[in-house]
Amino acid sequence: MRKIHVIGIGAGDPDQLTLQAVRALRSTDVFFVLEKGEVKGDLTRLRRDMLATHIPEGTYRVVEARDPERDRTAGGAAYSPAVGDWRAARADIYERLITEELGEGESGAFLVWGDPALYDSTLGILEEVLERGAVAFEYDVVPGISSVSALVARHRTGLNRVGRPVQITTGRRLAEGFPEGVDDVVVMLDAHRTFRQYAGEDIDIYWGAYIGTPDEILVSGPLAEAGPRIERLRAEARERKGWIMDTYLLRRNPGSGER
Amino acid sequence: MRKIHVIGIGAGDPDQLTLQAVRALRSTDVFFVLEKGEVKGDLTRLRRDMLATHIPEGTYRVVEARDPERDRTAGGAAYSPAVGDWRAARADIYERLITEELGEGESGAFLVWGDPALYDSTLGILEEVLERGAVAFEYDVVPGISSVSALVARHRTGLNRVGRPVQITTGRRLAEGFPEGVDDVVVMLDAHRTFRQYAGEDIDIYWGAYIGTPDEILVSGPLAEAGPRIERLRAEARERKGWIMDTYLLRRNPGSGER
Repeated sequence: MRKIHVIGIGAGDPDQLTLQAVRALRSTDVFFVLEKGEVKGDLTRLRRDMLATHIPEGTYRVVEARDPERDRTAGGAAYSPAVGDWRAARADIYERLITEELGEGESGAFLVWGDPALYDSTLGILEEVLERGAVAFEYDVVPGISSVSALVARHRTGLNRVGRPVQITTGRRLAEGFPEGVDDVVVMLDAHRTFRQYAGEDIDIYWGAYIGTPDEILVSGPLAEAGPRIERLRAEARERKGWIMDTYLLRRNPGSGER
Repeated sequence: MRKIHVIGIGAGDPDQLTLQAVRALRSTDVFFVLEKGEVKGDLTRLRRDMLATHIPEGTYRVVEARDPERDRTAGGAAYSPAVGDWRAARADIYERLITEELGEGESGAFLVWGDPALYDSTLGILEEVLERGAVAFEYDVVPGISSVSALVARHRTGLNRVGRPVQITTGRRLAEGFPEGVDDVVVMLDAHRTFRQYAGEDIDIYWGAYIGTPDEILVSGPLAEAGPRIERLRAEARERKGWIMDTYLLRRNPGSGER
């Protein structure tokens, strides 16, 4: 039986690998690397360095494939179907990789930045490949340090306040309104700096980009003051590196009440 | 300057330690272990085994203290003040430990199950000790694999569905109603099996206890069917081991709409 590991490799600091992840890396014959259309050479290099650090050379293969382009221009209601098409295209690629590149009895792995449980499609796509029934395999999941967890650790704060909930959501959702019933909100996948929408409220922001890497930038403070600073730093960094990965926690002060 | 590491040590599987956590363990002179009033000998042993595995014997000290009793009988509105008293009592203990047991220039560490960012008081208490000003120290936070992350990895599912939010909350909050605006809810600190309240709804549950340890129990399925099974297994396990740590994800099916 073919075996697949879905391995969370942490948010960018190679030391955020768990011992379990290192063991899984060492038991892998073939690593599947899907390159994004965008230039993310830094991330590819980081991943290759991890393999080189933890696994003896010559004991594994790396198979690269091109990630299908995702139609990010489709906004609003069209979002989910576009995601559906993209997932189907990705499932085709995964199916081909597993069928053609992984021998019977071999182990393959997909390396996922952060934690495979948060805003990552790998598990859903593997389930889709299994449902199609063209190739059989077992798989397991190695949890990783998410960018969320890494962000608040670097800011030395918690995700929730005592006895209170925390919500993890997307920039797109935040644009529709501050989530109901929570004052602590982590925002991922926000290309549009949606935090600007809440600049008039009594909210603290804990923001980070390239967390855990040498390029890490951290900013925290009241949104009205920190927001413009984040916008400037974010634009400069994006210009300089060609890409950015950032995440933030919005913490609304209790006095400002719920909307 | 005294230095403190707050180290997330994962949800119970010693292999969930990160390389960063192992490095932090090795750079620590004194480990502070706060024993709970409840008998959690298994957890204490697990923690000691981690130290013994990763640090040469004789290169570190372990200082034990008794955790103050928390008044869990105070319900409802009284919750926060009771927590406040308990935090102050704990801050007294932390202050004493750091002042008396940690020499100038030494490093101390608090080991936190899961991730220090989720429903853990260590960071808040250290901030309180610093504010009091009786002892000065630097501290950093090493993120850990949370029980939330470990739970969904074992169930091979994600926390969120595509483009949707997820909320992490407490049993106490869930008792007040299913959170607004989300269909995926992780529940922690639920001693009262509050999921029973939602047995009539179209909800799947992903439940786990002692996650990552040899005693691990996992149950998933529609709440109406899985719920009674979880209740039975939970009661048996609690009886057998004398304590239980469990977490679950409730996933409401989209068709059932938002309340």
